[in-house]
Amino acid sequence: MRQIGIVGLGLIGGSAGMALRRLGAEVSVTGLCLTEDDARLAERLGAVDTASARIESLRGCELVLLATPMTEIEGLFEAIGQSLPEDTLITDVASVKLPVIEAARRRLAAAGRFLGGHPMAGRAESGIRHSDPGLFNGTPWVFTPQPEQDLAPFQWWMELVTRIGARPLLMDAAEHDRQAAYVSHLAFTLSSAYVALARRKAGEGIAGPGFRGMARLAHGDARMYAEIAAANQRNLLDAIDNFTQVLAGYRQAIAGGDRLLPLFSEAGHASD
Amino acid sequence: MRQIGIVGLGLIGGSAGMALRRLGAEVSVTGLCLTEDDARLAERLGAVDTASARIESLRGCELVLLATPMTEIEGLFEAIGQSLPEDTLITDVASVKLPVIEAARRRLAAAGRFLGGHPMAGRAESGIRHSDPGLFNGTPWVFTPQPEQDLAPFQWWMELVTRIGARPLLMDAAEHDRQAAYVSHLAFTLSSAYVALARRKAGEGIAGPGFRGMARLAHGDARMYAEIAAANQRNLLDAIDNFTQVLAGYRQAIAGGDRLLPLFSEAGHASD
Repeated sequence: MRQIGIVGLGLIGGSAGMALRRLGAEVSVTGLCLTEDDARLAERLGAVDTASARIESLRGCELVLLATPMTEIEGLFEAIGQSLPEDTLITDVASVKLPVIEAARRRLAAAGRFLGGHPMAGRAESGIRHSDPGLFNGTPWVFTPQPEQDLAPFQWWMELVTRIGARPLLMDAAEHDRQAAYVSHLAFTLSSAYVALARRKAGEGIAGPGFRGMARLAHGDARMYAEIAAANQRNLLDAIDNFTQVLAGYRQAIAGGDRLLPLFSEAGHASD
Repeated sequence: MRQIGIVGLGLIGGSAGMALRRLGAEVSVTGLCLTEDDARLAERLGAVDTASARIESLRGCELVLLATPMTEIEGLFEAIGQSLPEDTLITDVASVKLPVIEAARRRLAAAGRFLGGHPMAGRAESGIRHSDPGLFNGTPWVFTPQPEQDLAPFQWWMELVTRIGARPLLMDAAEHDRQAAYVSHLAFTLSSAYVALARRKAGEGIAGPGFRGMARLAHGDARMYAEIAAANQRNLLDAIDNFTQVLAGYRQAIAGGDRLLPLFSEAGHASD
């Protein structure tokens, strides 16, 4: 029987709890929330077997999954270091990995007990009430080992991640953060900037599927976006600069009025 | 009994045909396609009562809906002027309205028989095989009357448009084109530029919902996008310039590292 702790029961933590509990009696999930009210809600929704607001409740856990806002993680490393046995494994779901790994090195006596993780899953809606055990179906779940980190202790966790539908993927943390800036952080930045502009320039009256498609990400968790933009600042700025350059190329082609077709087909269809 | 002709049976024409035919025996739909094979397919899919590749088949129609690529419309005005009775009403679904109205003024003896229209509906998939009678449910269907145009002859058509689920909306053509540049044409331009960049900078391996959300529009009909970018050039360039400016503001705030929260919450949640 694997006993797993989940700290932070929002969309991702709640969904992970539900998905893990569906695997049956071999897995037991203990939740750690900010308040006992949150704990009761998580239990009622079936996201955990039991939950509480006391970190000591995680003492029997083999692995603790941190699914809180990123800014809480450093403090949690410290709290875990003080309150839980030294062999408790730790992993997380934060969107930016290098800062979390650096925090682990600062705060944990044995940094190798922490393995950074990032499921590429999400919804515009946040919070445990939107949790869904199918959230990880078919999504990559990136793991970012530290140089020469021993992955053997985490093998069973990667297997569980596979069994809840995700595809584990090993990646260097710096490379993850660079790529995530493009596939994720640039995406919500563009969506937010687009909505801010389009709302000012056009009535909602004529908004159709084009607007809604581009606006979807902008309705996501603003606090999480702000945290990510701060934590992955350098990579996100690079991505914005490169996007600005690509868009300038589109502008030039549209102004020239020729070779417009490759502009739109390259992006959507070609295998470049 | 209203006999309606639809010229061009792609996603929009086919969906309109299906939706209109669901209204029952009071409406009959005749399709005009490029080939007799297309005509048989449209009949088989239930998008029309009958279809053919001969424009004369539209002679009994009270109104003809042009749902072809935009570049075909001027030629169709001429063909309709030559082949169909002078009291046949004409409307269209093109994404840019001023050029179509100008073409109507050039090619039709009585330009008032044409009323520009634009249903704000669409899918990433194109073609009659993706047609869906529910496509217009809850979507704005913009009409762009010419100055002092008599709308009375088109009232029954606007009512039918309502009955297939759309919300008719009257708008000045120039204003439509300006607003559509923001809610639609800028959206697919950003999506295309984003995909072109993200594909170059990141492996598909870690692409999650953020990437897919931003990439959806880029998979649309490249030929239609190119036509729109050419036809609405000035407005789209303005929209790109304004977006570049807004994005530069986001860049500056992210580089400064403060006041990030309003950046992402203003866009998604505020009522500005």
